Amino acid sequence: MKRGVRAAFQGELGAFSQVAARQLLGETVKVVPCTRFDLVFEQLASGKVDAAVVPIENTLHGSIHENYDHLLKYGLEIVAETQVRIVHNLIVVPGVKFSAVRKVYSHPVALNQCLKFFADNQQLERVPFYDTAGSVKMILEQEIKDSAAIASSIAAEQYDGQILRKSIEDDVQNFTRFFLLRRPGSKPEIAGKAGWKTSLVFTTPNKSGSLFRALSAFALRDLSLSKIESRPLPGKPYEYLYYLDFLGKASDPVPQKALAHLEELADMLKILGSYPRSV
Amino acid sequence: MKRGVRAAFQGELGAFSQVAARQLLGETVKVVPCTRFDLVFEQLASGKVDAAVVPIENTLHGSIHENYDHLLKYGLEIVAETQVRIVHNLIVVPGVKFSAVRKVYSHPVALNQCLKFFADNQQLERVPFYDTAGSVKMILEQEIKDSAAIASSIAAEQYDGQILRKSIEDDVQNFTRFFLLRRPGSKPEIAGKAGWKTSLVFTTPNKSGSLFRALSAFALRDLSLSKIESRPLPGKPYEYLYYLDFLGKASDPVPQKALAHLEELADMLKILGSYPRSV
Repeated sequence: MKRGVRAAFQGELGAFSQVAARQLLGETVKVVPCTRFDLVFEQLASGKVDAAVVPIENTLHGSIHENYDHLLKYGLEIVAETQVRIVHNLIVVPGVKFSAVRKVYSHPVALNQCLKFFADNQQLERVPFYDTAGSVKMILEQEIKDSAAIASSIAAEQYDGQILRKSIEDDVQNFTRFFLLRRPGSKPEIAGKAGWKTSLVFTTPNKSGSLFRALSAFALRDLSLSKIESRPLPGKPYEYLYYLDFLGKASDPVPQKALAHLEELADMLKILGSYPRSV
Repeated sequence: MKRGVRAAFQGELGAFSQVAARQLLGETVKVVPCTRFDLVFEQLASGKVDAAVVPIENTLHGSIHENYDHLLKYGLEIVAETQVRIVHNLIVVPGVKFSAVRKVYSHPVALNQCLKFFADNQQLERVPFYDTAGSVKMILEQEIKDSAAIASSIAAEQYDGQILRKSIEDDVQNFTRFFLLRRPGSKPEIAGKAGWKTSLVFTTPNKSGSLFRALSAFALRDLSLSKIESRPLPGKPYEYLYYLDFLGKASDPVPQKALAHLEELADMLKILGSYPRSV
């Protein structure tokens, strides 16, 4: 069913978003790289692609508010989620031996996530570069044989690089969560054993205790939250947007009642989608 | 009083953290740049510096979980907060005219935040670089005269660059919130008209409705929250850390009762500091 789906994502070919696209849509996905997140949303909204894959939060760096903004603006639907573990690999021009490597290019964040590797290999000079996948592209295109790059395995595949060392990152608990987006009204997914999750955004009246009252809509119905986050509204001190995920499907009876209750208590409520929960 | 304070921060000289250090500690602050956040915390914990300045959240990119982790681990105290507006400037080697500029270097995120400027000046080629302040350092050190860099005004000052165009960013609502940290037991700050804020971290028992009960400690005492955020505990599905900020000072009578109540309901509670609220 998923053969040939065209999916937009932000970043260079070989970025971790492309790993997410494969996890969500299979190996046959046709990816459309975009330079910015708003362009990813525009591609999908205008019908130029069938799906979009966007990161929404990372275990070290938090929520990507910009993509919540686009979710509110473009009215696209979240139909699936996935977690990508950030695995860094040492990639070279095929045939280059480890003993020949003098310099290692990558984004500073990636270089800083492989400190044990650099401590064990002190002959290597770290060279900051603007992008992980971009650093692989650069050493392969210019055939630089005294250097390596650090990036995803998909970047090695994309630019015909060779992986010399796998999984050299220090932290094996570094995950990014991605959403798969479709235009509204697309064919629904089927939930697995982990059941459903629903993501929504709401604002509350500017009164003390209003979040507490809003959460009662879920707590009084024993619905579990898997995310709650406040975000200050720019230029409006004391006013907040809230991001909330709960376990359940918006169209099921109990969640329906909870959402009707929340609607009474909230100034604004927008459901971003119900989708099979990933574990 | 603040003359000569030595403050550690993460990044190159001229980074936005240095702007925050000046806002928090005055123009005479002596900054100690570090390559990583954990080193910033270590410098302060070990007594090598008097203070540390760390970003905690950004209006587009969310909370920096890594720094919450370090706050929990190192036991340092938040004594002040500030907001830095992310202002991008076009910086050149002194004497270079705008008509001579062909290439513009900066971090891809910064380049993407100045799209209107590039649309109005289509002759300019964007060149991604690993760091904003680093791009200024590079064009100044190498005296590159057909190029400019995009970075903070403090980066221009740091590397003796000249600002050709001020504030070329698209979004004037892009702020980063920074904490000023001291070792515990340091001289307390004095709150201004905006009063106090307290930051804390807690975990709740793995039961539905436990966050709702935890928030009752504040709601039932009319204490206003200015931040609430859940963070999944790695490797423990259904278990969360919560970040919470409320308006008030932990040692005042009503907050004291709220915190005692929260302690009954939470598995773990750690107060990170009470500090004058910035507006």
